[in-house]
Amino acid sequence: MDIKSYMRDIGVNAKKASSQLAAAETNQKNTFLEYLSNLLLDNAAAIIAANKNDLSKAEDNGLDAAFIDRLKLDEKNIKAMAEGLKQIQSLDDPIGAIANVKPMPSGIQVGKMRVPLGVIGMIFESRPNVTIDAAGLAIKSGNAIILRGGSESIHSNNYLAILIKEALIKANLPESSIQVIDTTDRTAVGELITMHEFVDVIIPRGGKSLIKRISDEASIPVIKHLDGNCHIYVDEHASLEQALGIVDNAKTQRLGTCNTLESLVVHKNFAEIFLIKLHGILKSKNIELRGCDETLKIIKSATKATEDDFYEEYLGPILSCKIVTSFDEAIRHINHYSSGHTEAIITNHYENSMRFLREIDSSSVMINASTRFADGFEYGLGAEIGISTDKFHARGPVGLEGLTSEKYIVIGNGQIRK
Amino acid sequence: MDIKSYMRDIGVNAKKASSQLAAAETNQKNTFLEYLSNLLLDNAAAIIAANKNDLSKAEDNGLDAAFIDRLKLDEKNIKAMAEGLKQIQSLDDPIGAIANVKPMPSGIQVGKMRVPLGVIGMIFESRPNVTIDAAGLAIKSGNAIILRGGSESIHSNNYLAILIKEALIKANLPESSIQVIDTTDRTAVGELITMHEFVDVIIPRGGKSLIKRISDEASIPVIKHLDGNCHIYVDEHASLEQALGIVDNAKTQRLGTCNTLESLVVHKNFAEIFLIKLHGILKSKNIELRGCDETLKIIKSATKATEDDFYEEYLGPILSCKIVTSFDEAIRHINHYSSGHTEAIITNHYENSMRFLREIDSSSVMINASTRFADGFEYGLGAEIGISTDKFHARGPVGLEGLTSEKYIVIGNGQIRK
Repeated sequence: MDIKSYMRDIGVNAKKASSQLAAAETNQKNTFLEYLSNLLLDNAAAIIAANKNDLSKAEDNGLDAAFIDRLKLDEKNIKAMAEGLKQIQSLDDPIGAIANVKPMPSGIQVGKMRVPLGVIGMIFESRPNVTIDAAGLAIKSGNAIILRGGSESIHSNNYLAILIKEALIKANLPESSIQVIDTTDRTAVGELITMHEFVDVIIPRGGKSLIKRISDEASIPVIKHLDGNCHIYVDEHASLEQALGIVDNAKTQRLGTCNTLESLVVHKNFAEIFLIKLHGILKSKNIELRGCDETLKIIKSATKATEDDFYEEYLGPILSCKIVTSFDEAIRHINHYSSGHTEAIITNHYENSMRFLREIDSSSVMINASTRFADGFEYGLGAEIGISTDKFHARGPVGLEGLTSEKYIVIGNGQIRK
Repeated sequence: MDIKSYMRDIGVNAKKASSQLAAAETNQKNTFLEYLSNLLLDNAAAIIAANKNDLSKAEDNGLDAAFIDRLKLDEKNIKAMAEGLKQIQSLDDPIGAIANVKPMPSGIQVGKMRVPLGVIGMIFESRPNVTIDAAGLAIKSGNAIILRGGSESIHSNNYLAILIKEALIKANLPESSIQVIDTTDRTAVGELITMHEFVDVIIPRGGKSLIKRISDEASIPVIKHLDGNCHIYVDEHASLEQALGIVDNAKTQRLGTCNTLESLVVHKNFAEIFLIKLHGILKSKNIELRGCDETLKIIKSATKATEDDFYEEYLGPILSCKIVTSFDEAIRHINHYSSGHTEAIITNHYENSMRFLREIDSSSVMINASTRFADGFEYGLGAEIGISTDKFHARGPVGLEGLTSEKYIVIGNGQIRK
């Protein structure tokens, strides 16, 4: 197969479908979502059978338990996928919404209308549930989507593609609205991320190295999610109980998520009792503390943190700790080492809380709340396609709105420019 | 001089200045704008003297009259620059504005805060007034900026840089907030557009080839403005008088601007009388009409339009014309040939006007108004740094808001994730 022309055909078809989708009615999109949701439940046995092909290959190839776990589809997660689609169905249609129409001195009225981006190229790991999630979000936001899942999930994705096509036909939407790349040839990805005539945005999901490679090589805008080296700053004016509760939750509720706490910063005047109590909690949960010299004076059994520790997203049972002598030092330390994902302050000091909100340069900045809240569902977006650590276009959790753009509209009655 | 390390120093300093600027008070920014405005007026003679150096070199090098015109600074345009700064001073400060704070079921409150992008890299032709414009917009939006003007304007820009520095000091803002690259070495541009550790966005201003080259080579997001192949569709339900007035204005008021009409599309049922009358107006203004076969049947003296004509941004005294047999054909024709800048419909038909607004995929879509209105001032933005023909991030005229981003803020009182 000639991958270049195969991908080109996919691009042409997606572009064509995208103009029809841009004008599609909300009813059609919701019909698609509802019908696909039902198809998933009705065909659960066949989905599981297709997935078994992928699973047995993955096992033969000696892939690890975490990989198998992400690849596996069972009754429970098929139900979750079906429910996810129903949830997207219940969200407001963002497309066509008109905002801020104002009369201008010339007599024209100027406003903005929300429109789809066009064609999304999505590249993700062997997690077939993402196929359904991404398809649902793309259709509701009026975008065509080209899906390239991990090659180990090809049987699952190809079967899901059959159900998706059936639902598109039912809703009278173009069949090319959602296309699953059914080759495992890696050059297909290289084509996808450089077809700027056809593709408007690339969304990679997966490990840091995948995302970095895609961003470096793409000639199309990328909504990217790099590290989550999240910080909590415990101010000298914190409540001890709140600080302990939030730091414990942010670090230990789930170790491997991007919004998990990785780096603790504590004001010296608050450090002693707080760190001793916190260390007790962490020890009981087998979390290792790696501290600066000042930390080691209080917690003698802690490991010494290196410069690298302060940059690290552990995604595991380790927490770094830095003691600072002032609020300004805390701000400087965090803006220097943070990856710009999520940072929180624990304080009852009004001015420090306001300055933290303003001066910390991250996609989510929090006062007296756990970093674990940085999430599309917790923020009321209803669903998310990823979390952006960029400043350009979308920043933070990306829901339907992040998959759209706004064009200017001008309403006149014969005005000419003088 | 080692350009790589020279540019790196500029980048490091800009990045450092940008964090101070992000936290600067509105008063400081306005002091800078007011003081610089006064400095321009007080030092007009010295500005003109510095500019004379550039002008005489440009004349020696045989550059054309249009080039000299853009390069030249006189009392009149120094006054306009000073007034532009006062206008930016009068605009609301976008930075720190908090919007849409809503309580979530978990008890946290989630909203968004507007923040600067960080560091802007601006590359432009030998038009020294852009130096002042861009400096003013960058400071008001809380961004540091690195300016690279055309090499033929280096004396003017270096003198303006002295005044800028004085105004920054007066306002107690970091001197590196605005840096003018004072080498004409072209490798400096190559460095600027790839220093993604320091620069957050690149804004090129100038000819299409400059912008294309920058976009192709930059590894940093670019706010780009490519062609303005603007269309007007005259529907079968148009008012003859409105159609003639708007098409005349859009084509002939200024021939060389990006929002000038280049391509006319007319419904066959409206074409005959309309085109005969329009042709009379165009002839009297020496505008050439290039038409499709159907157009030539009505206007026998018109030139035959080629396929290339329909793609062309003439920026001159030529108008292409295509007669269509349906509204749907008009939409398809425009979305195919347009560059996505600005398109208008002339109609009194409700459904056609609404479908046009929704289905045309351009940065500005208008009903019964001249395409010449596509402009930051006419849209009430107060000032513009350019017009974006992209969909990603900013689309259409880009004012202060286009130079900003929004981060999520979370306000809690001890909430943890369950």
